[in-house]
Amino acid sequence: MQAFFLPAATSAAAPLSAVPEQVQISLGDRSYPILIGTGLLGHAQAWAGLPQAATAFIVTNTTLQPLYAERLQAALQPHYAAVFTVALPDGEAHKNWQTLNLIFDALLQQGSDRKTVLFALGGGVVGDMTGFAAASYMRGVPFVQVPTTLLAQVDSSVGGKTAINHPLGKNMIGAFYQPHLVVCDLDLLKTLPRRELSAGLAEVIKYGPIADMAFLDWIESNLDALLASEPAALAHAVKRSCEIKAWVVGQDEREGGLRAILNFGHTFGHAIEAGMGYGAWLHGEAVGCGMVMAARLSQRLGLIDESLVLRLTRLIHHAGLPVQGPLLDETDNAGRYLQLMRLDKKSEAGEIRFVVIDGPGRAAVRSAPDALVREVIDDCCLSV
Amino acid sequence: MQAFFLPAATSAAAPLSAVPEQVQISLGDRSYPILIGTGLLGHAQAWAGLPQAATAFIVTNTTLQPLYAERLQAALQPHYAAVFTVALPDGEAHKNWQTLNLIFDALLQQGSDRKTVLFALGGGVVGDMTGFAAASYMRGVPFVQVPTTLLAQVDSSVGGKTAINHPLGKNMIGAFYQPHLVVCDLDLLKTLPRRELSAGLAEVIKYGPIADMAFLDWIESNLDALLASEPAALAHAVKRSCEIKAWVVGQDEREGGLRAILNFGHTFGHAIEAGMGYGAWLHGEAVGCGMVMAARLSQRLGLIDESLVLRLTRLIHHAGLPVQGPLLDETDNAGRYLQLMRLDKKSEAGEIRFVVIDGPGRAAVRSAPDALVREVIDDCCLSV
Repeated sequence: MQAFFLPAATSAAAPLSAVPEQVQISLGDRSYPILIGTGLLGHAQAWAGLPQAATAFIVTNTTLQPLYAERLQAALQPHYAAVFTVALPDGEAHKNWQTLNLIFDALLQQGSDRKTVLFALGGGVVGDMTGFAAASYMRGVPFVQVPTTLLAQVDSSVGGKTAINHPLGKNMIGAFYQPHLVVCDLDLLKTLPRRELSAGLAEVIKYGPIADMAFLDWIESNLDALLASEPAALAHAVKRSCEIKAWVVGQDEREGGLRAILNFGHTFGHAIEAGMGYGAWLHGEAVGCGMVMAARLSQRLGLIDESLVLRLTRLIHHAGLPVQGPLLDETDNAGRYLQLMRLDKKSEAGEIRFVVIDGPGRAAVRSAPDALVREVIDDCCLSV
Repeated sequence: MQAFFLPAATSAAAPLSAVPEQVQISLGDRSYPILIGTGLLGHAQAWAGLPQAATAFIVTNTTLQPLYAERLQAALQPHYAAVFTVALPDGEAHKNWQTLNLIFDALLQQGSDRKTVLFALGGGVVGDMTGFAAASYMRGVPFVQVPTTLLAQVDSSVGGKTAINHPLGKNMIGAFYQPHLVVCDLDLLKTLPRRELSAGLAEVIKYGPIADMAFLDWIESNLDALLASEPAALAHAVKRSCEIKAWVVGQDEREGGLRAILNFGHTFGHAIEAGMGYGAWLHGEAVGCGMVMAARLSQRLGLIDESLVLRLTRLIHHAGLPVQGPLLDETDNAGRYLQLMRLDKKSEAGEIRFVVIDGPGRAAVRSAPDALVREVIDDCCLSV
């Protein structure tokens, strides 16, 4: 485990200014800013440094298109001679090659070239697919993330992980490919269903136990404001999450080591998503429950006290997320979890690598004996 | 056009030694060697610096599998606990997502992890698909090129361009992703059909007019030896081609400028391939004919003399390649060529960018008036 020095948090929940706040991802010539604020879709300053091109493509889904596509189109019109929109079917179940190909079809039908800019207007699914389309179309065109969910604003739109699912595993086909710019307009969260707000909070909570216990305190104190979508609270949650993520990604873009800590809760979570069928649980719901299981594993390994497990479980529950794992197999539930977790991308030669809490505010990646993992799963899952 | 200084050729056609010859691709931490020689498949030195992993996958096609897969398997066995083979259907018509997915299916079914190494045993199609699979599987695993055709040894296996075709355009979906090693075993060319040998010579000839007229002289003098697959002649052709390509790619990995000159003949060539249906003409055949058209365009633009056009046409013809373009449309043949060429990846905002000979041994990228291009197409195509 590398030593790490996290930059201190800026003043918590300062009054919102008219100027968007900015977090920088520092990756040499692939560096880019994340802009955070209200009203950004109509804010000329947010769209100042766009890549030049003849055409732009807004990639969104059929649910979001009627809500926001026209406003983004209006913001982009001054910058591009032609702005097209592609609306994909909505949902994780469509995060596959067939849907990705709809983007390629549209790009080619309009004669898009190597400079055409793609804009991902949506949540994690739209962002991941647009990013992989941008990485692959003509071997790479520029793209911009305009995340419309809390989960995408605090996690998936930042850091350049793009992918589609394969029937045998989530996010198995993809690329590390950085966007040119991320625009987090908090106003877009106003239409977010409560269930998706909770799912996003899972990824916000994640940053506490792995990197910043003061942020965990802040989340606990401000959970009601966050659940009520108060802009100042959301702005701080998004900004601090992006700061922590920027700091991790800046040190380990391609997940050679440190970056894996961002997958806290994801090893168990991915097993839940795969076992239930993609889309049955939201990704954030599976991660919320997965964090309870990963915390329990950390405690069983002697790394943290029971009290931190209970504290996290309580917060995740109050955030509106499941804290008990689903039953994936009636005869050998733990065995099914283990089988699915061996397919995790962090696994090596069939050995599952778990992200654990290595003391409050610190994470590590390690293996664990199957027998211990079985006990954790039995502890944390609904019984028959 | 950037100024460039090509390294001098090493001694032409030196006697073959038992030690493989080596050309280095210099790209910082993505640098790698190209090994060239006979008997390399069974030569322990060729497989010394392989990436460590538990498993390796040989990706090949159903034609090559019975010829070479077992020998490569034997060479890799000492390095990996398990070596699997996937055989794809043979031919450019299968260079698509469905076939690519056969690789992903096999990788996931065997529980491959992030370190699993892919070996592309085949020509350009196998190399391009294996490279793109390696770039995308779990967002990137290492791969090694073992090219079995002259075309792949002198061009497609080197430089990190990977891709699959889309029904609306060739190589439209892909990645820049460098191999870890390229092993050019000249013995593998012994089973190469004469038609494919000629197709490979197209890419050898290409390096002359764009970069090295002395190499063009050498090819003319040694064409009979090359067509007879004499190892010493092939070794020099492969080595000098790789040297020139290494020098270009080392300066411009992602085709921001200079690298585009390697597409000499390819703009016309891709139109031929797309217009005839992928696989009707071999890629090298289309490029051979495309070079005649690009040379004629260069002459019409006043950049070179008629004599160089005729010299190139004669050489391409003697290499067993077509020098007259096919008729792609009975009513507006030139219009059809132009329409297809506008889809070329070098096009920008609908303007076709042609690679032209800008004086003997020097290339440039530029546009040309449609009327002039139409004349060139009419000149170079079979009439109705």
